[in-house]
Amino acid sequence: MSAVVAEKTTTLREGAFGNATNLACRECGHQVELGPFYACPECFGPLEVAYEFGEVTREQIEAGPANIWRYKALLPVPTDIEQSPNTEPGYTRLLRAHNLGAELGIANLWVKDDSTNPTNSFKDRVVACALSAARELGAKVFACPSTGNLANAVAAAGARAGIKTVVFIPSNLEHPKQVNSAVFTESLVAVNGNYDDVNKLASEIAGEEEGWAFVNVNVRPFYAEGSKTLGYEIAEQLGWRLPDQIVIPVASGSQLTKVHKAFQELIKLGLVEDKPYRVFGAQAAGCSPVSVAYKAGVDAIRPVKPDTIAKSLAIGNPADGIYVLDICRETGGAVEDVTDDEVRDGIVLLARTEGIFTETAGGTTVAVLKKLVETGQLDTDLETVVINTGHGLKTLDAVSGKVGPAATIEPTYAAFAATGLA
Amino acid sequence: MSAVVAEKTTTLREGAFGNATNLACRECGHQVELGPFYACPECFGPLEVAYEFGEVTREQIEAGPANIWRYKALLPVPTDIEQSPNTEPGYTRLLRAHNLGAELGIANLWVKDDSTNPTNSFKDRVVACALSAARELGAKVFACPSTGNLANAVAAAGARAGIKTVVFIPSNLEHPKQVNSAVFTESLVAVNGNYDDVNKLASEIAGEEEGWAFVNVNVRPFYAEGSKTLGYEIAEQLGWRLPDQIVIPVASGSQLTKVHKAFQELIKLGLVEDKPYRVFGAQAAGCSPVSVAYKAGVDAIRPVKPDTIAKSLAIGNPADGIYVLDICRETGGAVEDVTDDEVRDGIVLLARTEGIFTETAGGTTVAVLKKLVETGQLDTDLETVVINTGHGLKTLDAVSGKVGPAATIEPTYAAFAATGLA
Repeated sequence: MSAVVAEKTTTLREGAFGNATNLACRECGHQVELGPFYACPECFGPLEVAYEFGEVTREQIEAGPANIWRYKALLPVPTDIEQSPNTEPGYTRLLRAHNLGAELGIANLWVKDDSTNPTNSFKDRVVACALSAARELGAKVFACPSTGNLANAVAAAGARAGIKTVVFIPSNLEHPKQVNSAVFTESLVAVNGNYDDVNKLASEIAGEEEGWAFVNVNVRPFYAEGSKTLGYEIAEQLGWRLPDQIVIPVASGSQLTKVHKAFQELIKLGLVEDKPYRVFGAQAAGCSPVSVAYKAGVDAIRPVKPDTIAKSLAIGNPADGIYVLDICRETGGAVEDVTDDEVRDGIVLLARTEGIFTETAGGTTVAVLKKLVETGQLDTDLETVVINTGHGLKTLDAVSGKVGPAATIEPTYAAFAATGLA
Repeated sequence: MSAVVAEKTTTLREGAFGNATNLACRECGHQVELGPFYACPECFGPLEVAYEFGEVTREQIEAGPANIWRYKALLPVPTDIEQSPNTEPGYTRLLRAHNLGAELGIANLWVKDDSTNPTNSFKDRVVACALSAARELGAKVFACPSTGNLANAVAAAGARAGIKTVVFIPSNLEHPKQVNSAVFTESLVAVNGNYDDVNKLASEIAGEEEGWAFVNVNVRPFYAEGSKTLGYEIAEQLGWRLPDQIVIPVASGSQLTKVHKAFQELIKLGLVEDKPYRVFGAQAAGCSPVSVAYKAGVDAIRPVKPDTIAKSLAIGNPADGIYVLDICRETGGAVEDVTDDEVRDGIVLLARTEGIFTETAGGTTVAVLKKLVETGQLDTDLETVVINTGHGLKTLDAVSGKVGPAATIEPTYAAFAATGLA
């Protein structure tokens, strides 16, 4: 497969990737130049962006915009990134969760709520970084395979940037999710097959076509860095402090590893005090290869065929699963999983306590938080953050059978009084 | 009807309403004390919050949080408002709309995007202010009649604040909108009847029950002030400058009057330079009583029976309609209306150009913007802001017949190549 996005003649402009210096293999450390590469030419391990940051201060960051570009010095983007049209995601709410904390018996709990991003999931963060890379690499098409959130984010960001988007989805995807992407792009392609088939086709096209930036394939190293901003924001919004514990959903595992990377960078840069923190991963029982490996005490992840309502977490062979295991074990955290019924309960619990309507992935994370408390794996006296990655309006069916009107009445006061709701 | 929310014994604490001094009748100027009053006892005109601001500086505001409470000195809320659990709405994106501007021939266009608020509409702003009033007045129930956005916002804010909510909706409301409220509250009440019936019932209950704060009935003066924050944010995000022209959707008309009030306050406080600006109102043809009056050159608004897909704008007898007429005429703006087909086109146009998925109200506003240009009513050389008040995921049906996959293919490169999308 060709890893080239742009034609060879494209020359990178000075500072195209900011403080990033090269790509480095996570397995063997081999370094390659910055470009549309994602697999190590030596060992096929995943490539990751490496940096030389220089000095970065709290004041610099605080003077930046109320979106992810306040952290531009820590991302593989140019210093003038705010000038290029993008969806301006991030700097979402970090809410003190008194009610949910009281319900679960956690003294000091926060919810980082990414459902209020431009297309209502954390994917806007990673896509914004991928868009910058695509632009700097001279890509002519911005593309992805997806079953939902990523499709929305890519189609919207491409529209705003004025770059052609082509978005691939399984043809049996729910109609609302199709609309939520098709409204942004005239090139939504439905593929007869499951997500794996769509993914495979995307890799094939990435190899055949010149100038296509598939956000989660050939510009993945840049894309993935966007998740670090969740970690930066949590630390800054806590008053430049790391939490004691954090619970993060695990699909590919990339988000969890990047939040950890962000915390480590902040420590190294002296932006927060060095302290121990515990990282917990959340999966749905119907797709829990990392949780299964964690509980079995093994290092190898055995791929599964997903069967859960938490479709945005339904990656049966998670690329970063082994790194999730490492981080959760090293930090004294854990990986846990919950049933689909617990996921539904988690959605309603978060809504009723904190007024946040999360999608099934968030329901999974909240339900795992609950289970971690019940099983004594989480210390309820420590400051804890739970991440909500998406919006319940996208997975409405999950709870539409669970909640509804308490009463249906005639339009009279007498009828209302008879309900007992007064 | 009783206008009392709390029992008479409730005493307001010092500073309960910040810099607000009293309520004043918009018609006759009669003043009443701050409290759960909404109609002038002299002339039945609408009561509005009046203030003595003292000094308010840009620096004070800029040092505040990235939500509406940065403007707390200009709202009827206590100085410690951030400490009370609320949804922390506002400070939403103001996006430079190069693509939409190019499409419409407007040199300098911005979109203020309120679809990324906590429950995805501007209603979170007004509800946050109503919640503060309800709390200070000692209300025991937080309630509203609604067909959608307001129900979501009230139910979510009440859940987070830990105050009982009772939300009234027409029983024939679409199932997704019911779910999006019921997920937050166990007291969703479906009423057999149309929105007018629900509204009437709400007023009846407000009169019968002690301690109920109906956000858009008996605490309406406080509630409505929340819309001013849209105006404050636009000015601050433009770099403490007023735009030359602004296009605002008109339902009750309250939002438009409050944005104008906000601009006037900023001028008086010396926070922005005094300059002329033109205010434009947007309605759907199927519910355009204000636009009809504007075009006829009359002052009186003749109520209509709404028939439009823009349901969140479907108020046939808009309370603030006459003030909208005044403001649009005095500032050299206009009120315009568009058909449901134009509304649908407006939704797709905004999505394809700026990556924002708006609801039918936003589709109306964008379509009116287009029509104002085509009819020469808007000066395309002047800096213009258009407000998007809500999210397309809530009115998916409006465009689900208009957009969809460009092709459905087998999962092979050959099949993709044959589509011509490469």
